[in-house]
Amino acid sequence: MQVGVIGSGSCYDDICDVAFRIGQLLAEKGVVIINGGLGGVMEAVSRGAKSRNGFVVGVIPSKERRDANRYCDVVIATNMGHARNVVIVHSSDVLIAIGGGFGTLSEIAVALKEGKRVVAYKPPVLLEGIILAESAEDAVRKALGGGDEGDRG
Amino acid sequence: MQVGVIGSGSCYDDICDVAFRIGQLLAEKGVVIINGGLGGVMEAVSRGAKSRNGFVVGVIPSKERRDANRYCDVVIATNMGHARNVVIVHSSDVLIAIGGGFGTLSEIAVALKEGKRVVAYKPPVLLEGIILAESAEDAVRKALGGGDEGDRG
Amino acid sequence: MQVGVIGSGSCYDDICDVAFRIGQLLAEKGVVIINGGLGGVMEAVSRGAKSRNGFVVGVIPSKERRDANRYCDVVIATNMGHARNVVIVHSSDVLIAIGGGFGTLSEIAVALKEGKRVVAYKPPVLLEGIILAESAEDAVRKALGGGDEGDRG
Amino acid sequence: MQVGVIGSGSCYDDICDVAFRIGQLLAEKGVVIINGGLGGVMEAVSRGAKSRNGFVVGVIPSKERRDANRYCDVVIATNMGHARNVVIVHSSDVLIAIGGGFGTLSEIAVALKEGKRVVAYKPPVLLEGIILAESAEDAVRKALGGGDEGDRG
Repeated sequence: MQVGVIGSGSCYDDICDVAFRIGQLLAEKGVVIINGGLGGVMEAVSRGAKSRNGFVVGVIPSKERRDANRYCDVVIATNMGHARNVVIVHSSDVLIAIGGGFGTLSEIAVALKEGKRVVAYKPPVLLEGIILAESAEDAVRKALGGGDEGDRG
Repeated sequence: MQVGVIGSGSCYDDICDVAFRIGQLLAEKGVVIINGGLGGVMEAVSRGAKSRNGFVVGVIPSKERRDANRYCDVVIATNMGHARNVVIVHSSDVLIAIGGGFGTLSEIAVALKEGKRVVAYKPPVLLEGIILAESAEDAVRKALGGGDEGDRG
Repeated sequence: MQVGVIGSGSCYDDICDVAFRIGQLLAEKGVVIINGGLGGVMEAVSRGAKSRNGFVVGVIPSKERRDANRYCDVVIATNMGHARNVVIVHSSDVLIAIGGGFGTLSEIAVALKEGKRVVAYKPPVLLEGIILAESAEDAVRKALGGGDEGDRG
Repeated sequence: MQVGVIGSGSCYDDICDVAFRIGQLLAEKGVVIINGGLGGVMEAVSRGAKSRNGFVVGVIPSKERRDANRYCDVVIATNMGHARNVVIVHSSDVLIAIGGGFGTLSEIAVALKEGKRVVAYKPPVLLEGIILAESAEDAVRKALGGGDEGDRG
């Protein structure tokens, strides 16, 4: 199983703590994490995953693999800017969004358009189809399918 | 000047009437229209533009140029699915969104992330940064820079 | 009809003279020219086309439309680097290669893989499937379908 | 280290035997293998790698992860057709080409354009810059930097 974890390149509030914890939980479940490979939420989730021996693929916008943070096991260098967001969506069975801004929103929108499950903690905007999560544990539970889907946002 | 006009592949309410009228107005201004080349809003705006001798570039998701509607002067076949939305954004000086769903939202989000002006008539969701328009005339006026920008949505 | 004209960003020998002349001939035939929008062969063919009132679409690798040469009527900014070569191939009914290096070769290879007709003047390497041309006139004649195809290279 | 291994979707002569062996050797060296994720050479190298507990990332042209062969540890679904070849190149420190046709040639050309080291066993065409290999062992040795580079093709 491949789980996309998306969010912005900077942190605020408890966003990066939650991202770190989600990385740990996903690693414990043995799923592959796909993310954007840069800083902020992307780095926090990767750091969390690596602290639990998880596996992280960073799909970066540039062609310079050194632009990736150092917690990626594999770096896919697309050289396609924002279009790499679409690659992350197609490569993920389900997506977890943690906070985020316009970039994250573009990924959420493509994922919903593609009919993928999107679980979000403090999403940039509420959209029909997003499954809201209230904590790292709740996000992972709902993403991996054990959640009560009655509470779609 | 190249103006992106975005919206969904199907029509509802007055969306396609407004799209047709926006096509006419942009054609009268002599700007090149960039859009997604398929049906619904994309076809309506192209039809409007051609009724006023405008010029339309359809940037389509598939590699089959015949997938484009017949009101495109040039068809760019990307074979990149949703990633073609990003190409439309980068190729446009300003974007006008007319109605729309998740696909349109992904384009709006990328455009705002890129710092582009986004004017929207009945957008899928209200986002900070979107300039709301109340009619075709209002949308074109605000898109081409003659608008009072005090009313950013 | 949309004709892709490909070649490198620098000129040597008679390459840019031939490119300029091919631009003129295609413009006289009324076809849309698709090219890479930068310098060298791309600029020469565009300049030739504009000298005969032709129409040129530059599909550039960056997201900065100002990177295009000034002889493009429309600029498609992909922000996808070499992947824009694939967009040029899919957007062209037939391709004319003029000289060129590795970049041009990658486009030729994709075009042949896609089963597109490829006419080449002094191609970077001889490949089965390339139709060789001996002059600008010969290239345009063979590209637009009037050529004797007995001399496939 | 990430090594791209490229080749066509079908096998002939000893091509797939060599691909299988290269997969084994790379796995023994502990490098990550990046390839196109489909059949033929792509599957053979992956099968070889997995027989030695290696790690394989398949970067596929479609958006359907089930299109990948079953020897991929991670599947990146680009939905970008031939443009995924460019992603493979950017994601690889060095490339090994095994046989191949036009698709492989397009990847080799982009790799050489990018200044990457390209080692090839029975390449589709001889190009200046390709480092020829005479066996699986020779290819891996030259790719990983232990080779005498005096014999650049």
